[in-house]
Amino acid sequence: MDYAATTPPHPDVVEAMLPYLKEKFGNPSSLHSFGQEAKAAVEEGRKQVANLINCQPEEIVFTSGGTESNNFAIHGVIHKLKPNKNHIITSKIEHHAILEPCHFLEKEGPAPDGAGAGFKVTYLDVDEDGLVNPEDVRAAITDKTALVSIMHANNEIGTIEPIKEIAKITKEKGVYFHTDAVQTVGQIDVDVADLGVDLLSASAHKFYGPKGIGFIYIKKGTRMTQFLRGGSQERNRRASTENVPGIVAIGKAAEIAKTELSERIKKTTELREMLFNGLLEKIPDIRINGHRTKRLPKNAAIIVKYVEGESMLLNLDLEGIAASTGSACSSGSLEASHVIRAIGTSPEDSHGSIRFSLGRLNTKEEVKYVLEVFPKIVQKLRAMSPLRRK
Amino acid sequence: MDYAATTPPHPDVVEAMLPYLKEKFGNPSSLHSFGQEAKAAVEEGRKQVANLINCQPEEIVFTSGGTESNNFAIHGVIHKLKPNKNHIITSKIEHHAILEPCHFLEKEGPAPDGAGAGFKVTYLDVDEDGLVNPEDVRAAITDKTALVSIMHANNEIGTIEPIKEIAKITKEKGVYFHTDAVQTVGQIDVDVADLGVDLLSASAHKFYGPKGIGFIYIKKGTRMTQFLRGGSQERNRRASTENVPGIVAIGKAAEIAKTELSERIKKTTELREMLFNGLLEKIPDIRINGHRTKRLPKNAAIIVKYVEGESMLLNLDLEGIAASTGSACSSGSLEASHVIRAIGTSPEDSHGSIRFSLGRLNTKEEVKYVLEVFPKIVQKLRAMSPLRRK
Repeated sequence: MDYAATTPPHPDVVEAMLPYLKEKFGNPSSLHSFGQEAKAAVEEGRKQVANLINCQPEEIVFTSGGTESNNFAIHGVIHKLKPNKNHIITSKIEHHAILEPCHFLEKEGPAPDGAGAGFKVTYLDVDEDGLVNPEDVRAAITDKTALVSIMHANNEIGTIEPIKEIAKITKEKGVYFHTDAVQTVGQIDVDVADLGVDLLSASAHKFYGPKGIGFIYIKKGTRMTQFLRGGSQERNRRASTENVPGIVAIGKAAEIAKTELSERIKKTTELREMLFNGLLEKIPDIRINGHRTKRLPKNAAIIVKYVEGESMLLNLDLEGIAASTGSACSSGSLEASHVIRAIGTSPEDSHGSIRFSLGRLNTKEEVKYVLEVFPKIVQKLRAMSPLRRK
Repeated sequence: MDYAATTPPHPDVVEAMLPYLKEKFGNPSSLHSFGQEAKAAVEEGRKQVANLINCQPEEIVFTSGGTESNNFAIHGVIHKLKPNKNHIITSKIEHHAILEPCHFLEKEGPAPDGAGAGFKVTYLDVDEDGLVNPEDVRAAITDKTALVSIMHANNEIGTIEPIKEIAKITKEKGVYFHTDAVQTVGQIDVDVADLGVDLLSASAHKFYGPKGIGFIYIKKGTRMTQFLRGGSQERNRRASTENVPGIVAIGKAAEIAKTELSERIKKTTELREMLFNGLLEKIPDIRINGHRTKRLPKNAAIIVKYVEGESMLLNLDLEGIAASTGSACSSGSLEASHVIRAIGTSPEDSHGSIRFSLGRLNTKEEVKYVLEVFPKIVQKLRAMSPLRRK
């Protein structure tokens, strides 16, 4: 129950990529037939991905994953539009792969006017459900703003942001709009034309593809520099020998996602509601994290008062249940997550954050098993907890 | 005969990575057992790679390939050492993945002193064999120099650079030294302690691993910033969910390379000499490109006067032979390669550049077949050529 951290590649995805790990091993840049065979596979993968998010194939650039796509979006736009535009607007609950490049630009970045001014970043507040207010975006835009980057759905608490509403504002103001859709592509309907974004990031391993491959959608006409520089691959937008098996895999994963999408939404919503309702019924002093309805079908994030997230995780693990405290990417650390803090959770409560996330292989029986095991774990931990009712 | 462009993954490499594309799909950042199983696999891969190049496992950072490793080396060092150090020394025959980040820094980079000075790059000349003179490196170093980056062996002409000699100079001067070893790791002995470098780039698909995975060796104590920013993976040196199957694969490829290395050197040297001698004997007006002895065993690059490289390639392809004109990364373009120009080849001759590159699956029979087919192709093309003896 940790599908938000990663997913098992679909068997058909592995099957599809295997020939490109074996006999069809050409380099797409090579002029000979081995190379051209690999190039054709790359272009087929591009079409499949474009078809999933409703764009043109040439608007897809393959990357090594969500982090590279996010870094690329931030650096690509700001380096192209500087020094006239030196301002980025984002939110306090973005993934670190957005926040860290922003911090880097603020601290280390060039001084576009030669006077040490550097880049500026506005980090918007969110409400207690994790929602960005589109009017806050409007208010933050200045004539120096190059880019707005707001995630499609939050990885920890599952809240889906009002991307269409924000896109209307950025369009009106003539500012580029990027969305980190790592948690939504393949999970809910992601249609870039309907959303109205200029840039969008995604990662295969979050939707039943392998790790090490992702993409960035770059709307035709969007002005940006490269991020990885070298050869002329990906129409000069991203250097590096194409990860052919990975591209074939993400293409297949996109194709399968397109077919299974409504089924996935239905199934995970159902299981999540079953889980939420059961937990709320069986465990006192817990609450749902994130927006109750504007949320990812797969995400079941809760706060369990008077217990530590890590203790819950390890006890669940002993029972064969995988879950997460906040984001997998920072789960090595003991700090309360920036997302949990940004939605106004008290420091004590924030320790009790736990995220279950559902996927295509989960069953009702598994949810029942969690509902049987988890309340006992909470009860045991609370009995030992110094935090309880102090 | 295009192993310098890419190689087929070794069957044992594919076998080793498969479980990590299937049941062992955990995210190494997850605290539960599925995550820890993946983490253990990543650390095993790191040990195998470290063992191949004789360093500590914690000195290896996995990347998406050679391009990212090279971009990382350049940006990582210069952003850390600026504004005091703002100068990079490299050569005119480096891969584009070194040259392009350098061009970007020169043109777009920050002004470290706030006065628009920006970064400076010295591009060293090479001799007619493609060799960098270590004394040129010494002469170019100033008190502003942050980094010297000279490739271990050139991808087009195969010349092996005097890395140890250059390392002595950089060490003496207190300047970091990076080498792009994409063409050498797994092909010839690469021992970072013996070479004396601080940073080294490599890519799995050049030594019988898959595309989309590489590494950078960062000597303990080397000061550099991140390149991909976000989560705290790779001991905070490279954000992004680890490409677990890719890392298992590059680990296995490194292990196999270590075992097979002397055999690979012996075999490819033998086949290359057979090819060179046969070509020189059978075709008039050709010459070897690159240094005759200080060269990669696998590389058989030649200049065939009075013909176009691309015509040779396409005719070879029709006979089932894969080769390359210069680097695969720029082979979409019709420009004469920067490497061929830098070694002083005349514009006319540079069009006749062709590179055969040998590998573990090539046989003497295949070399004989090339020696039978290729002279006829050259003869045919020369008969039609407007360049001939004009």
